[in-house]
Amino acid sequence: MARVYNFSAGPAMLPEAVLQQAREEMLDWQGTGTCVAEMSHRGKAFVSIAERAEADLRALLGIPENYRVLFLQGGASSQFAMVPLNLLRGKGEADYVNTGTWSKKAIAEARRYCAVNVVADTLGEPLGRAPAQHELALSGERAAYVHYTPNETIAGVEFPYVPETGAVPLVADMSSTLLSRPIDVSRFGLIYAGAQKNIGPAGLTIVIVRDDLLGQPQAATPTMFDYKVHADADSMYNTPPTYAWYLAGLVFQWLRENGGLGAMAEINARKAALLYGTIDASDFYHNPVDPGSRSWMNVTFTLADPALDGRFLEEAAAAGLTALKGHRLVGGMRASIYNAMPESGVEALVAFMREFERRHG
Amino acid sequence: MARVYNFSAGPAMLPEAVLQQAREEMLDWQGTGTCVAEMSHRGKAFVSIAERAEADLRALLGIPENYRVLFLQGGASSQFAMVPLNLLRGKGEADYVNTGTWSKKAIAEARRYCAVNVVADTLGEPLGRAPAQHELALSGERAAYVHYTPNETIAGVEFPYVPETGAVPLVADMSSTLLSRPIDVSRFGLIYAGAQKNIGPAGLTIVIVRDDLLGQPQAATPTMFDYKVHADADSMYNTPPTYAWYLAGLVFQWLRENGGLGAMAEINARKAALLYGTIDASDFYHNPVDPGSRSWMNVTFTLADPALDGRFLEEAAAAGLTALKGHRLVGGMRASIYNAMPESGVEALVAFMREFERRHG
Repeated sequence: MARVYNFSAGPAMLPEAVLQQAREEMLDWQGTGTCVAEMSHRGKAFVSIAERAEADLRALLGIPENYRVLFLQGGASSQFAMVPLNLLRGKGEADYVNTGTWSKKAIAEARRYCAVNVVADTLGEPLGRAPAQHELALSGERAAYVHYTPNETIAGVEFPYVPETGAVPLVADMSSTLLSRPIDVSRFGLIYAGAQKNIGPAGLTIVIVRDDLLGQPQAATPTMFDYKVHADADSMYNTPPTYAWYLAGLVFQWLRENGGLGAMAEINARKAALLYGTIDASDFYHNPVDPGSRSWMNVTFTLADPALDGRFLEEAAAAGLTALKGHRLVGGMRASIYNAMPESGVEALVAFMREFERRHG
Repeated sequence: MARVYNFSAGPAMLPEAVLQQAREEMLDWQGTGTCVAEMSHRGKAFVSIAERAEADLRALLGIPENYRVLFLQGGASSQFAMVPLNLLRGKGEADYVNTGTWSKKAIAEARRYCAVNVVADTLGEPLGRAPAQHELALSGERAAYVHYTPNETIAGVEFPYVPETGAVPLVADMSSTLLSRPIDVSRFGLIYAGAQKNIGPAGLTIVIVRDDLLGQPQAATPTMFDYKVHADADSMYNTPPTYAWYLAGLVFQWLRENGGLGAMAEINARKAALLYGTIDASDFYHNPVDPGSRSWMNVTFTLADPALDGRFLEEAAAAGLTALKGHRLVGGMRASIYNAMPESGVEALVAFMREFERRHG
């Protein structure tokens, strides 16, 4: 079959150029006679791959020198525990913003380690929404850190701004937004992201952490959950997920060759505008998110008649537009349009949606 | 360059047939128009891949029904903490056998959670060696479990038997021996293995655990370190390392197509016998392990004149025999000859060793 436009929320589409290169190098990476997955992580070849990946990521995001970049395992779900285990540093409370399913999971895990102050909660509101800065009832320096989820993958709710938290470190679960546009890393104490949206395959987790926050884990923290252990060993305390790291490196190169995050931001803004514009121009489709908090990456929408959902998905798949089913918690549809989704994919989806409405609306 | 014989201890060689299939399917898995790395882990296609991998692994190892198979992240180093966090079940001590670097690391991490009884210690002995059953000073039911490392990857020391521990669950770090031959899983309470030796790429960890041991984690255990959470969710509590799982599944299929673990055991025994025989027949090469405890998987040897080490490695690499350098902690050479290393690779290594001795001995 021809390649499809795959709107999965993650694991998600990878750039075709990256897959092509991985295919070419599968049995022989650059004359070594081995696949990258077969290389010792401590050998020269893999170390060069690892270092280049980090350098490219640093260049893409403009990561300041006082931040460490870690290539870990375990996904955001592990970070939900690692953040309090490492960042409480003697304090007993932390501030969390609750904007959706992923915030809620982060809060539940943090509660096992500290008192959580929910400083804003929009999860129960009928329209998905990020709270404004003035709505955040921050605890000030009583809180060890402030945690938020810039983009809620399931509901498609995104913060249009970076919260101001003063001297309190800001921690962000950027799993589904990192690399979608430029960010000012210096605004954050710690950023984490599962790779399987904008970065690479599942099984790799990127952590970007300000170095002064390292080195004060709680007593019972498993060694593998101590950021400093990984930072001190350049993410090779144990065997890292080498092949995933390599694929992420290919994605970083592809981003740099295609104009970096500035170019991605323009393309992603156009893709989102086209899709939301199509939804808004129709009475048949509806997006349940406040217009000021709409995600660039995960566009959720419902059909006027939910009885047509199955047919929509079936006909879309037949047209090469796959994985549009919304998350089971919210239903409806979700089109995830990460960096690797070309504009032609969104154009094809919009054309299909208009045609489907014409026939069934 | 042509494919080389790669003797890396891990990440290690993968079967060429597996890499060929992965290459063919890179842009389009079985007519789906997507790479496996791009698939939602909850979609039908990936679930079928995941279920087949587990079924094949169960068939290969004859895993009884009262054991769960988990596909996790984090490597053996995470298991060093997960084992005590989950298996102490109210007890305050556990028995550990210390036979090498990996035992020692497991012990150090366990000491953070309980009293460790080192029931035998051969690490300091001049000749690497597994203690005999009668040397194990087991604590009986005071111990929550008995932990050992059937194969020490670094020194190349392997247990020639499975310890008898009565009613106390036996826990084994099988990272570098699982799938090398048939085992009786029912002898064990829990088996774990990083994938990057005999199973697949780094970033996947297999855990096989008897179901009655699940569900009593210590209070502060991170959710992601609770075996039962993963067991209840069929290893999909969060996004699993999907591409690594898929590659492991291809390895399991390859093993079944090639006669299963009985056939592997015969081939692996022949490979090890040829290599140890060559070493023993020479005054130039020396293996520092007790003959009764020699690893089938990691064959360590030294040259009579260590000044020739660099030359040996250089000439071997030029002959397409790579990654033979011993671990930095022990020096010398190490040839890891996991399932994916064909007999022709060991034959080529042995021919090279004889020729090198002829010229330099």
